[in-house]
Amino acid sequence: MNTISEIAEVLRSLRSAVIFTHTRPDGDAVGCGVALSIALDRLGIPNQLVNEGELPQKFRFLAGTEKFLLRPTLDAEGYICVDSSDERRLGELCKLFLRGAGKGKVTVNIDHHISNTRYCKYNFVRGRSSNCENIAELIEALGVPLDEAISAALMTGIITDSGSFSHSDVNGDTFRAAAKAADGGAKVDRITNELFRRQSKARSEMYIGVLSRLRYLLNDKLAVAVVSLETLSKGGLSQADTEGIVDYALTVDPVEVSICLMEVKKGQYKASFRSKGRVNVNEVAAVFGGGGHILASGCMVFGDLEEVIDRLRYAVLSHMGDV
Amino acid sequence: MNTISEIAEVLRSLRSAVIFTHTRPDGDAVGCGVALSIALDRLGIPNQLVNEGELPQKFRFLAGTEKFLLRPTLDAEGYICVDSSDERRLGELCKLFLRGAGKGKVTVNIDHHISNTRYCKYNFVRGRSSNCENIAELIEALGVPLDEAISAALMTGIITDSGSFSHSDVNGDTFRAAAKAADGGAKVDRITNELFRRQSKARSEMYIGVLSRLRYLLNDKLAVAVVSLETLSKGGLSQADTEGIVDYALTVDPVEVSICLMEVKKGQYKASFRSKGRVNVNEVAAVFGGGGHILASGCMVFGDLEEVIDRLRYAVLSHMGDV
Repeated sequence: MNTISEIAEVLRSLRSAVIFTHTRPDGDAVGCGVALSIALDRLGIPNQLVNEGELPQKFRFLAGTEKFLLRPTLDAEGYICVDSSDERRLGELCKLFLRGAGKGKVTVNIDHHISNTRYCKYNFVRGRSSNCENIAELIEALGVPLDEAISAALMTGIITDSGSFSHSDVNGDTFRAAAKAADGGAKVDRITNELFRRQSKARSEMYIGVLSRLRYLLNDKLAVAVVSLETLSKGGLSQADTEGIVDYALTVDPVEVSICLMEVKKGQYKASFRSKGRVNVNEVAAVFGGGGHILASGCMVFGDLEEVIDRLRYAVLSHMGDV
Repeated sequence: MNTISEIAEVLRSLRSAVIFTHTRPDGDAVGCGVALSIALDRLGIPNQLVNEGELPQKFRFLAGTEKFLLRPTLDAEGYICVDSSDERRLGELCKLFLRGAGKGKVTVNIDHHISNTRYCKYNFVRGRSSNCENIAELIEALGVPLDEAISAALMTGIITDSGSFSHSDVNGDTFRAAAKAADGGAKVDRITNELFRRQSKARSEMYIGVLSRLRYLLNDKLAVAVVSLETLSKGGLSQADTEGIVDYALTVDPVEVSICLMEVKKGQYKASFRSKGRVNVNEVAAVFGGGGHILASGCMVFGDLEEVIDRLRYAVLSHMGDV
């Protein structure tokens, strides 16, 4: 693996660059991309920022997000991947990335996932709570001072990937990176409001409606929320609007596992799982061919709603141990 | 006003101390009290920590909160007030404090409210997002290293008073103080879970029930939530369990003002107001003899529920300007 100064040296020598980030980008992916792209602008290195799909609307408040393209139009010397543990995480852009790598482009990988496969010529992987912390270190090594736009982008990644500074991997370094971004002009109140404290009336009514029909099973150790297609279409909403529903039930004291069932089409449900830690929901999801992490995972389940709930209940019960 | 080293010098010379904090203590008050009390222990200065009422259950997870007493039993040399803008904020303990001050006790005031009246012999007031940041600076000046208990107490104050690092007064200093507390052993995941991500099933059902009956008025610019005495008694809940309800509606896009009405007894409602900033709810509350801040205030309103809502609607409308 390379040091951050070696990575900075490689970037500084590039005549042009394309920055890739992962499919269905979250706040960290967007923040890393925007911050690095602006930093390269400041160094006078022509660059483009690409992602395979439309950027989620909620990130559009961030200056620099208008730079995202669906495909590069620049035949750049360097291909830089941020926040992406392997090349498949680039989605449709993976082919383009691999073709470029095969043609001798200088490939650079900057990531915080410990599962990162080191798929580039130059790799910097450090397991911090957000990859924006790594990008902040890189920008410092590049000698680019933090302005308001770079700072806001970095803070967005730090806030989102750290769960607003609440995840177990948050440490002194996380706060020191946030301090620098705040000093640089990032406004935490504005960023937090845009990311977490805004919703349409229709989304709010769907959210409250779904939670008012929450089902408690297994002696209140399991909570199941159901979002029907009808509920979504009635409010003109999409699956993205269900974000946060599965997390709610985990705040309820006896609940150990929370499931949100989203109807994809008749007889097909997408299940999201969350656990407080005593039940491994990665194993529960695996029963249905899905997976994820110990505390958060997902799968598809087929059948009538009541039958689907029965099967999920049994699968959770089987993994409860002596909870 | 004194410097933090002068305050540290005063404390270091005390043979004994009582630490007071404000009535209905929040996370910052509790954090300040506990952190300073443990720091004095480390210096070998006998001390007690007092507050007029029972400490809210949600802070009991914090080591050191068992030190809180309802009244001091120690005839201490020094009286130290933390996070209290004037002596009346000490509630029932105000008299005892004033009596001590009159008898020549060394009084010390460490606070972050800019409205602080400098009511002690020694005063340190610095307007930071939490007073725990001031206490952290004081503990450093006292030469006491941060251990896990002190760090967790400081982090609790920093997290609660900064709205989990989201308020507009959060700056680089806030994050630097948090970094030191994290380095000292504070676990942000545990603290956040205990403070914000735990509720009983009865509280959750009340919360969702109240929000499912949210009323939207004035073209969705005003939202009113109503918590009846019956709703609370049915769930075995108290007014403290309504915390957070008034904040919810402010996440809904068109809403400019959110009101939560809590039935105190038949024909009497306690109203809490929140504003996104375009309506001054301090002025709205003043119509009913209440007050607070531009963004958050409260008052009592008397009458039948529908009549109360009509009067509030009119008062908000009158302060809407061209919103």
